[in-house]
Amino acid sequence: MISPEGGGLERLRDVEDPLLVRACQGEPVETTPIWLMRQAGRYLPEYRRVRSQFDFMTVCKTPDLAVEVTLQPIRRFGFDGAILFSDILIPVDAMGLPVRFNPGPEVDSPVRTAQDVQALRRPDPSVELSFVLETLRILRRELPAEVALIGFAGGPFTLAAYMVEGESSKDFLLLKSLMYREPVIYHALMEKLSLVVSDYLSAQVEAGAQAVQLFDTWSGILSPRDYREFVLPHVRRIVERVKTPGVPFILFGVGTGGLLELMKESGADVIGIDWRTSMKEARRRLGPDQPLQGNLEPAVLYAPLEIIRERAREILMEVGLQGPHVFNLGHGITPETPIEAVAELVRCVHEDGRRLREAEAKGGVT
Amino acid sequence: MISPEGGGLERLRDVEDPLLVRACQGEPVETTPIWLMRQAGRYLPEYRRVRSQFDFMTVCKTPDLAVEVTLQPIRRFGFDGAILFSDILIPVDAMGLPVRFNPGPEVDSPVRTAQDVQALRRPDPSVELSFVLETLRILRRELPAEVALIGFAGGPFTLAAYMVEGESSKDFLLLKSLMYREPVIYHALMEKLSLVVSDYLSAQVEAGAQAVQLFDTWSGILSPRDYREFVLPHVRRIVERVKTPGVPFILFGVGTGGLLELMKESGADVIGIDWRTSMKEARRRLGPDQPLQGNLEPAVLYAPLEIIRERAREILMEVGLQGPHVFNLGHGITPETPIEAVAELVRCVHEDGRRLREAEAKGGVT
Repeated sequence: MISPEGGGLERLRDVEDPLLVRACQGEPVETTPIWLMRQAGRYLPEYRRVRSQFDFMTVCKTPDLAVEVTLQPIRRFGFDGAILFSDILIPVDAMGLPVRFNPGPEVDSPVRTAQDVQALRRPDPSVELSFVLETLRILRRELPAEVALIGFAGGPFTLAAYMVEGESSKDFLLLKSLMYREPVIYHALMEKLSLVVSDYLSAQVEAGAQAVQLFDTWSGILSPRDYREFVLPHVRRIVERVKTPGVPFILFGVGTGGLLELMKESGADVIGIDWRTSMKEARRRLGPDQPLQGNLEPAVLYAPLEIIRERAREILMEVGLQGPHVFNLGHGITPETPIEAVAELVRCVHEDGRRLREAEAKGGVT
Repeated sequence: MISPEGGGLERLRDVEDPLLVRACQGEPVETTPIWLMRQAGRYLPEYRRVRSQFDFMTVCKTPDLAVEVTLQPIRRFGFDGAILFSDILIPVDAMGLPVRFNPGPEVDSPVRTAQDVQALRRPDPSVELSFVLETLRILRRELPAEVALIGFAGGPFTLAAYMVEGESSKDFLLLKSLMYREPVIYHALMEKLSLVVSDYLSAQVEAGAQAVQLFDTWSGILSPRDYREFVLPHVRRIVERVKTPGVPFILFGVGTGGLLELMKESGADVIGIDWRTSMKEARRRLGPDQPLQGNLEPAVLYAPLEIIRERAREILMEVGLQGPHVFNLGHGITPETPIEAVAELVRCVHEDGRRLREAEAKGGVT
């Protein structure tokens, strides 16, 4: 176990990094690592058992419970990464804007004015978010050395979307109107959020996260020119502040096929690709050395096992064995997903990833 | 007025086509034509007045009312195209699957089995959909010669989505599960829908439509490899059946940035681009001669007028004055859009389109 209390600060480079971390850094790997977004969740009966006793926020805020549900999919499937169980809106709550889940997130007093932005606090993660850091420290002790601990935060635009709209939205017209009509207020909100997110992710790295993912889920609702003006500068500043040698930074969004080159400009180490852009196209556009994450269509897990195997293999071939790659879904796993499908996917990615590399080393992939 | 009763059959080529039709065919134009998806709608007070007396389906099914609301935005703004007021689910209703609006569309008996597919009828448009054809015939007489009459239908995948899910959906897991687990039933449904849509669009062309648009709105939820296997063959067959010389076929979907090359493979004349792919990128990928439609972010219409002007001009420059282009939004106009914004956009596209072309002809665009 590497320095469990200060993972990000004094990393011992003589102990080999977990497979997932090496893949994210473009180092040689023996097979393709895999984890799934929302892998701790409703599709697992053991998760539903915990949730039948405790509500969502209680699980997020109680380290022992959060640790338990984070570990559940690791025990069952042998994923290469364990992602902290939490919610992207936890730091928003800590900024002084109460969030409820009903079941989707709702904010009672949406942020609309300069005063609203000013009233938001910049929490000290070691105080207001200590339960998250404690969860990470316990996880880092409990996880096998070969499983990477992944921290995360919501992207500032995605958090702003909930904070301005007050709930999820179809068109995000309130947010976009603020952006176009009150750019000063909009950018003040984004700057505050970027600071909060940076503090939060840096604290997660200090607490032992071996990789971090920024879920900028909603950034895909923007045109490329708007992303460049209204999101990229803020994400770039977060990456600059958080970046720690040996701790890869993964940037993910949904429907971001038009934004990939701009996302790369953020300086993030790994770009997450959703299922609507082919890995071949992403590889072509971002270059052979760019670490990519993704991108199986989540609904394929409802298909017969032979189709799951076929699709997983197609992705491995498309992304290219030489190019750095972390296997994932193109978005979060859905609650009705059959467990056997997940088990088969993990087995298949590990086996095919290894077998295809061995075949290639011998001079021929079939 | 050109052969009002048989527009698609015996077109007189000596009378000049409307600007929009010429642009769709890559012919020289004096300026850039513009129309907006959902241009007859709630943002217009005169539309809201009609709807305060008649429900949505009554307006769709009563030619005098449908004609009136179709003409409202033409009178007000001077668009280059008038799109039939109707709903993509009208032919589904005629197939024997009742549709209600509540306010989103709902289907009481979703299609899930081979028997369900078999039970669907192939309506004769001249009988079950005669009110649509009558609306088009009246419109063709009433519209000024320079305004193109645009017919439309929903794409088979988009119709299948509503028919299988029973309502709109976040993940479309029922539809995708059918696709992966019961491909024979899925394709039977798509084949039936493709026939119905082809009959319907061909009848619209016969009734006077001078261009047709296939709204395959939901096709953007698919990965490129799934689009190729599960949608493209059906859309290609529709294009083949409907294509009529002089009547351009426009193919549009939302979130289809990953599918553009495949959409072009359908044989459609014009590819609609949503706001999430830049026109420059679409032009680069589809070639300098490909007629494109789009792609202003609909929320930009909530911005101050000078920003609307700036963005409209950016799109004209990005798509290139030499490349064929029809200006549109990247998706439907939203109900709260200010009327002044629409008026300004139309004026601006026409003026800039003309001015930039004149400047270019003189040897320099500034």
